[in-house]
Amino acid sequence: MAQPQQSDGAGTGKPPLRVGMVGYAFMGAAHSQGWRTAGRVFDLPMSPELAVVCGRDAIGVRAAADRHGWADTETDWRALVERDDVDLVDICTPGDSHAEIAVAALAAGKHVLCEKPLANTVAEAEAMADAAEQAWHQGRLAMVGFNYRRVPATALARRMVTEDRIGTLRHVRVTYLQDWLVDPAFPLTWRLRREQAGSGSLGDLGAHIVDLAQYLAGERLAGVSALTETFVRQRPLPTAPAGGLATVDATGTGQVTVDDAALFTGRFASGALASFEATRYATGRKNALRIELNGERGSLAFDLERLNELSYHDGTEPRAHAGFRRILVTEPDHPYLDAWWPPGHGLGYEHTFVHQARDLVHAVAEGRTPEPSFADGLQVQRVLAAVEESAEKNSVYTLITA
Amino acid sequence: MAQPQQSDGAGTGKPPLRVGMVGYAFMGAAHSQGWRTAGRVFDLPMSPELAVVCGRDAIGVRAAADRHGWADTETDWRALVERDDVDLVDICTPGDSHAEIAVAALAAGKHVLCEKPLANTVAEAEAMADAAEQAWHQGRLAMVGFNYRRVPATALARRMVTEDRIGTLRHVRVTYLQDWLVDPAFPLTWRLRREQAGSGSLGDLGAHIVDLAQYLAGERLAGVSALTETFVRQRPLPTAPAGGLATVDATGTGQVTVDDAALFTGRFASGALASFEATRYATGRKNALRIELNGERGSLAFDLERLNELSYHDGTEPRAHAGFRRILVTEPDHPYLDAWWPPGHGLGYEHTFVHQARDLVHAVAEGRTPEPSFADGLQVQRVLAAVEESAEKNSVYTLITA
Amino acid sequence: MAQPQQSDGAGTGKPPLRVGMVGYAFMGAAHSQGWRTAGRVFDLPMSPELAVVCGRDAIGVRAAADRHGWADTETDWRALVERDDVDLVDICTPGDSHAEIAVAALAAGKHVLCEKPLANTVAEAEAMADAAEQAWHQGRLAMVGFNYRRVPATALARRMVTEDRIGTLRHVRVTYLQDWLVDPAFPLTWRLRREQAGSGSLGDLGAHIVDLAQYLAGERLAGVSALTETFVRQRPLPTAPAGGLATVDATGTGQVTVDDAALFTGRFASGALASFEATRYATGRKNALRIELNGERGSLAFDLERLNELSYHDGTEPRAHAGFRRILVTEPDHPYLDAWWPPGHGLGYEHTFVHQARDLVHAVAEGRTPEPSFADGLQVQRVLAAVEESAEKNSVYTLITA
Amino acid sequence: MAQPQQSDGAGTGKPPLRVGMVGYAFMGAAHSQGWRTAGRVFDLPMSPELAVVCGRDAIGVRAAADRHGWADTETDWRALVERDDVDLVDICTPGDSHAEIAVAALAAGKHVLCEKPLANTVAEAEAMADAAEQAWHQGRLAMVGFNYRRVPATALARRMVTEDRIGTLRHVRVTYLQDWLVDPAFPLTWRLRREQAGSGSLGDLGAHIVDLAQYLAGERLAGVSALTETFVRQRPLPTAPAGGLATVDATGTGQVTVDDAALFTGRFASGALASFEATRYATGRKNALRIELNGERGSLAFDLERLNELSYHDGTEPRAHAGFRRILVTEPDHPYLDAWWPPGHGLGYEHTFVHQARDLVHAVAEGRTPEPSFADGLQVQRVLAAVEESAEKNSVYTLITA
Repeated sequence: MAQPQQSDGAGTGKPPLRVGMVGYAFMGAAHSQGWRTAGRVFDLPMSPELAVVCGRDAIGVRAAADRHGWADTETDWRALVERDDVDLVDICTPGDSHAEIAVAALAAGKHVLCEKPLANTVAEAEAMADAAEQAWHQGRLAMVGFNYRRVPATALARRMVTEDRIGTLRHVRVTYLQDWLVDPAFPLTWRLRREQAGSGSLGDLGAHIVDLAQYLAGERLAGVSALTETFVRQRPLPTAPAGGLATVDATGTGQVTVDDAALFTGRFASGALASFEATRYATGRKNALRIELNGERGSLAFDLERLNELSYHDGTEPRAHAGFRRILVTEPDHPYLDAWWPPGHGLGYEHTFVHQARDLVHAVAEGRTPEPSFADGLQVQRVLAAVEESAEKNSVYTLITA
Repeated sequence: MAQPQQSDGAGTGKPPLRVGMVGYAFMGAAHSQGWRTAGRVFDLPMSPELAVVCGRDAIGVRAAADRHGWADTETDWRALVERDDVDLVDICTPGDSHAEIAVAALAAGKHVLCEKPLANTVAEAEAMADAAEQAWHQGRLAMVGFNYRRVPATALARRMVTEDRIGTLRHVRVTYLQDWLVDPAFPLTWRLRREQAGSGSLGDLGAHIVDLAQYLAGERLAGVSALTETFVRQRPLPTAPAGGLATVDATGTGQVTVDDAALFTGRFASGALASFEATRYATGRKNALRIELNGERGSLAFDLERLNELSYHDGTEPRAHAGFRRILVTEPDHPYLDAWWPPGHGLGYEHTFVHQARDLVHAVAEGRTPEPSFADGLQVQRVLAAVEESAEKNSVYTLITA
Repeated sequence: MAQPQQSDGAGTGKPPLRVGMVGYAFMGAAHSQGWRTAGRVFDLPMSPELAVVCGRDAIGVRAAADRHGWADTETDWRALVERDDVDLVDICTPGDSHAEIAVAALAAGKHVLCEKPLANTVAEAEAMADAAEQAWHQGRLAMVGFNYRRVPATALARRMVTEDRIGTLRHVRVTYLQDWLVDPAFPLTWRLRREQAGSGSLGDLGAHIVDLAQYLAGERLAGVSALTETFVRQRPLPTAPAGGLATVDATGTGQVTVDDAALFTGRFASGALASFEATRYATGRKNALRIELNGERGSLAFDLERLNELSYHDGTEPRAHAGFRRILVTEPDHPYLDAWWPPGHGLGYEHTFVHQARDLVHAVAEGRTPEPSFADGLQVQRVLAAVEESAEKNSVYTLITA
Repeated sequence: MAQPQQSDGAGTGKPPLRVGMVGYAFMGAAHSQGWRTAGRVFDLPMSPELAVVCGRDAIGVRAAADRHGWADTETDWRALVERDDVDLVDICTPGDSHAEIAVAALAAGKHVLCEKPLANTVAEAEAMADAAEQAWHQGRLAMVGFNYRRVPATALARRMVTEDRIGTLRHVRVTYLQDWLVDPAFPLTWRLRREQAGSGSLGDLGAHIVDLAQYLAGERLAGVSALTETFVRQRPLPTAPAGGLATVDATGTGQVTVDDAALFTGRFASGALASFEATRYATGRKNALRIELNGERGSLAFDLERLNELSYHDGTEPRAHAGFRRILVTEPDHPYLDAWWPPGHGLGYEHTFVHQARDLVHAVAEGRTPEPSFADGLQVQRVLAAVEESAEKNSVYTLITA
C-alpha cells in the first residue's frame, strides 16, 4: 500500500480528514484534484487525506489510485463505507447508485459528499435527505456537489445579491448549452439511458442550472411549464457496451431513453419569472452555462465559458455612464481568491472542486451544515420531477411540491 | 405647399411613388428617413416622394412635415387615403387603428405599408389579410413593417440558412430585452393600455421576435406554451394624458392593462424547439433582440445591440480550428451593403427603414408581393393569440391555428 | 436645374446655408448624406441647402448631383468658389488640391469645410491656416473634417475626460487597422501615390488617430519616434488609370510611393506616453480604429467597429465591483443622441457627417470658430511630418515644432 | 523529515526526478503546483518528486515546505545544489541571483529550470548560456521559464503558424498591461529597484512579450526603437523593508530606479513590423497580455485575461463569411488538452506551470534540449538591452546583437 497523499503536509498537527471515494471517472479525477490541492492552497482546519478509492474493476481502480494519489483501493463500495479509516465518503458514480451508497455511508457514521444530481428519483432523494437529517443528529454531514456555486464569479454574484445590489428580482434566464450529441453517430453511452442516468440533459445540465438559479436568486421556484425532446432516438451502441442496455435492436443500435433537450419556464415564489434551457444540441456551444438576473436596481450575468468574469449592471448609476461592467473576478477580496494568484491570473474549471473540498473541510471541522445540503438536492429533484410531469402533461404549469 | 422631398432627384425620368404617411411619432420619423434616403443610396426603379403626412393635430403635423420633408399635410386619414396624388399609404399609428386605415387604403386602390404588429386582434388581422388578398388582384400590394428582417446581418443569416449552412434545425432561442419600465414611476402611456396597444411586451417586442425567428428558420411555429406577467400594475398618469384612459383611480394612477413580460416556448413544424422572452424589465438591456439558431451543421447568432455583426459557427470545420466567428456585416457582397460604405463602416438602426423602402419600391415596380406580407403578419398575430391563450390556460401547450 | 435639396424645409423662415461641394466620390457621398439629413434630425439655426456639386467630368457630376440631391453642378472648382449663391465650400477631393481650393474659397468670402488630412505638406497646411486666420477676421469660418470626433461615443469620452473621470493621463494607445492592401494584386490607386495622396496609411489613417488622440487627451504630442514600411512595392496599374502615374514599368505595374504602415510612439506635453499604429495590412481588421486612455483615476476605450459603445473603467470604484463597463452610447443624455432614436437603437458611420454638418451650421450661425480648426489640422500635419522625419532618421525621437 | 510529495505515485516503477527549488514566494507556489500536479494529469516518463525547497529564513521555508508539500528544506542554496538527492534545480528567486545559482547548479551536474527573465544583464545571461552549453555535453539540461508559451491557446497559435495558416507575416502587436502601480502610495518593493529586479516593467512584462512574440512569429527581432518612463519616482518604503534599499530619503520614501512603462517598436528579420508595450499603469487592466499577428493569409489574436480562447481569422475564406472566430481552446486535439477536462471546461493560469513541468520531464527523460533554452533566454535579454540602449539614445533604432 502506498503512502496516502495528503493535501496538507504530515506533521502539521492538524487532524486528518480521511476520504474514501467511490467512482474514478471524469468526476473522480476532478474530485481527486480537489482533495489533493485544497490544503496546499488554503489554510484548512483539517488535513484531507486521499485514503481509499473504490471501483468494480480491480486493475482499473489500482491504476486510478496510482494516477490520482489514493493510498488504497476497494472493489466493493460496501467494504469502503465500513472501513474504520475512512471519515468521509465521496460519491462520484452515476445517479442510480447514489441513494444506496449515501444512505449506507451515513448509517455507517461517515460524512458524505454526493455528486449531483442527488438521485434519479424524488423517492430516492427523499430517502437520502431523511438519512442526512438523522445523521446530522449524530454529527455527520452530507453535501451535494453542485460545484458551480463555487466558481468565484458565481459566489461573488451571490454575495452581491445578498448585498441588495440588484433589488427586487424580475427575471432569471439560464441556459446550459453543449453540443456533444449533435452528431447522430455519437454512441449510446450510459448517459443516454434512463435506467442509469435518470434523465438526459435535464438531470445532467438542468440540475445545475436549477440549483444555480435558486442559489443566486436566494429563493425557490414555485412552478414550471416544460417542453422536452429527444431529437435522435436511435444511436449506435458503444464499442465497449455500457451496462444494462436491454433494448438493442438488430441493426446494432439502441434506443435513447432520455431527453436530448429540456426547455422550461417558471415562477419564483416572489413572482419573478425564469426561463431555463438545457441541451446537448447547441452546435458550437461547449459548456455555455449562462445565467442572467435582472432586478429593479441592477443585473448580473455569468457565462461558464468565461468563468473568471462576472457582468454587472448597476441600475442606480446615472444613465450617461451606466453599462454592464466586466468584473474580472481575480481580486483578493473576491470569494476564494485571497489564496490564489495575483489579479488577472485566472482560475479554471477544476478549481470549483478545490473550493468544494475547502468548504466541506471547514464545515466538518466546525460542525456546520454544509451547503448545498441533501435537502437542497432533494428540492432540485422535485423541480426536475415537476419539469418532467409538465412535459408529459402538455406543458401545463405544474407546482413544485414542498 | 412646399416642394415634395424626393428620394430620387426630379428630372431623372423615373416614375414617382407618392407616399402618404399616417402618424408622425417615433415610427413616422424613422419611415420618413427611410423614404427620403432610399433613392439617394440605392438605384431604384421608381422615385419615392414624401407627398403627404397625416396627423390629428394640424399644428403638430405641419411641424412634422417641415421637419421630415413632407410636401403636404392632412388631419384626417380618410382624406389622405382618398387623395389621387397618393400611391402608397404608410401606416405608423398605434395598432388599434391599423385595420381600419389599411382596409380603407387598399379599397381606395393604394399600396399599403403597415407598421407591426399588423393588428391588435386576429380578427382585425384576418380582415386586413383578406383585403390585401383582394387588392393583390387589383395590382395593389401590402406589406407589414417587420424591419428587423432588413438588418444586413439578419438578411445574411437568412441567406446562410437557405444555403443550408446550419443544416437540420434543432433550436431557436430569442429574447427581446428592454428596461424602460423598470422604474415604477414611469408613467402610464398608451403602450401600457390594452385598448390601444393590444398587448404589452408581447405585441411590441414579441411580434418582432416571432417574425424574425420564423423568417430565419424558414418555417412556422406549430404550438406554444406561455407565461406572462404584469409586475407593476398601477402607474402614474402621464402629464399629457394619452387618449382613452378610462380607469383612473383617485390617487392619480391608472391601471396597466397589458403584459410587462412574456415568456414562451414552442415547437416548429419540423420539431425544432424554440424559446422566446419579451420584457421591458431587463435592467441594463436597452434593445437586446438576440437570436440564436442551432442546426446540425452550424449555428448563427445575432444581437441587435451590435447590429453590424453576425456570429456564425461552422460545424463542419475541424474542431481544432472551429469557433463562433464574428462576421462584420459590412462587405459589398453582404445584403444591401453594395450601396453603402467601405468595409468596416457600420450602419445603424434607421437603415432598416431605408432598406424596407428600397425593397417595397422594387416590389411595386415589379408587381411582386412584398415580404413580409399581410398574410405573414396575420400568422404572427395567430402566434401571439396562441401565446395569450396559453398564458390564460395555465400554460397548456396551444396549437397555432392555420 | 433641379430644386435644391434642403436639409430643413422651405418656408421655415430659417436662413439658408448654401453649400458647394467639390468632389463626389466616397467622401462626397458621405458629406451629401450629412448635409441632407442634419436639418431633418436636429433643430438647426440655419437651413443647409445642397446648392452645387463640382467635378471635372460633366456627366459624372450630373449623375452624382441627381443621386445625392444637389441642385446644380460645376466642372471647375474655381467657378464654384466664385458663385454668389454659395456660402460654404465643402472640399472632398484628394489631399493635393486641398490647399489651393481652400485658400481660394476663403479669399472669395466662403466658409470652408475641408476633408482630412488638411493638406499633403506642412507648408500647404500653414498657408491654409494663415488663410483661415485672415478669413476669421472677415467672419468666415474654416473647419477640417476629422469626423471621428463626432461619433457619440468619442464625444462622450471627451466629455468624461473634461469631467476629470480618468485623472492624470498615463497612456494613450491607438491603432487604426485595415486590410485592403493585403492582396498584392490590389491595384495601384491614387491613394498609393505620394504626389496625390501625400502619404499612405499615415495621412489616411494616421491623421485620424493623431487628431483623435490629442482631442481626447486634451493635449498635444511633444515628440515622436517612428518606423514606416512599404511591404508591397510594385502593384498592377488600375484598369482606369489614376492620374499622374508616371512611373509605370514594362510589366504593367507601377511603384507604390507611400507607406503601407506606420508605427510611432510619442510623449504628450504632460509626459503621458502614446503609441500609434496605422496599417492597411491587418488581415481581418476592416476599420479597427481603437483607442484607449489610461489615467490615474480611470480608463476609456473605444473601437470604431463597435461605434455605439464606449468602454469605461472607474478606478475609484471598490475593486471588488470594478470593471470595464460597456456604455451603450444611445441615451438621450449622450452627445447628439437626444435627436435620434430610443436607447439601444444604434447609429452608423455616416451619422458622423450629419453631426459634423450640425456643428458647423451652429458655428456659422453663432459666429464661433468651429473645431477642429485649420490650426488644429496644421498641428496634426506637423505631427505627421515629424513622424516622417523620424522614420527617415533611424527612428530618432523628433520634436514636433509648434 | 516528511515524506516527499510525488507527482506520480510511488511504486509505479517510473524513475524519479528529484526537484530542489530555490525561493518560495509567488513563483515558488506556482512551480510547486506544477511539479505536484504534472504526474497526476499527464502520463509522464519520470516521476517528479518535491525533494527540497530552499529559502534564507528557516521558519519561513519550513512553513512553505509544509504548505506546498516539499519533503525537506535548506537555507543556503549552495547546500541545495550540492545535494546528491537533487536532480534538478528550479530557480524562483529575483533576477539578481539567477546567474550565480544556475551556473553553480549546472556545474554541480544538475538540470536547471530558471524563472524569467534569465538574468538582469546580458553578461550574466551569456555566462548562463555558456554554462548551459557546457552542461549539455554532460547530459544536463537548462530551461528558462517563459510559461506563457504553454497556455494551450498560445501553443495552438504556434502550431497554426507552423501550419502556414497566416502566411507571410506583416505585423505583430503586443501589450502587457497591468495596473498595480497606479496608486502613488503603493510601496517601494524589490521589483522597483534596479539592483534586484534589473529593470521594471521591461524585464517583468516586456521579457514575456518579447519571448512570446518571437516564439509565435517563429523568427527574431532585428532591431528596436524605444521609449521608457518612470511616472512616479518616489514611493513610500514598504513596512517590512526589501533588502538593499540604499537610497532612502528623510521623508520615509525611496527612489524608484526602474522603468514604470516601456514602449518599443521593432522589425523582425523578415521585415515584419512589431510594436510592444509593457506597463503597470493601465488602470483596470489586470493581466492584459494581448498579442496579435497579421499575415498575408490570416491573423491570430490572444488575450491572457481570456486564456482559454484564441481568435483566428482565416483570410482565405470567402469574405461574405469571413470573420475572427473565437476558438475555445479546450478540445482534446488542442495542445495539452487531451489530459484535462471535457470541451468547454477551461484551465487557469497555474496550468502553464503544470505544462512546463510536463515538458521538462519529457525533455529530461528523452535527453532533448528543452525550449525555451538558456540561449533563447539570452537572446531575449539582448532585445531588452537594445530596448534600454535605444531609450537612452533618444529612441534611435538599435540593432540587436547576435
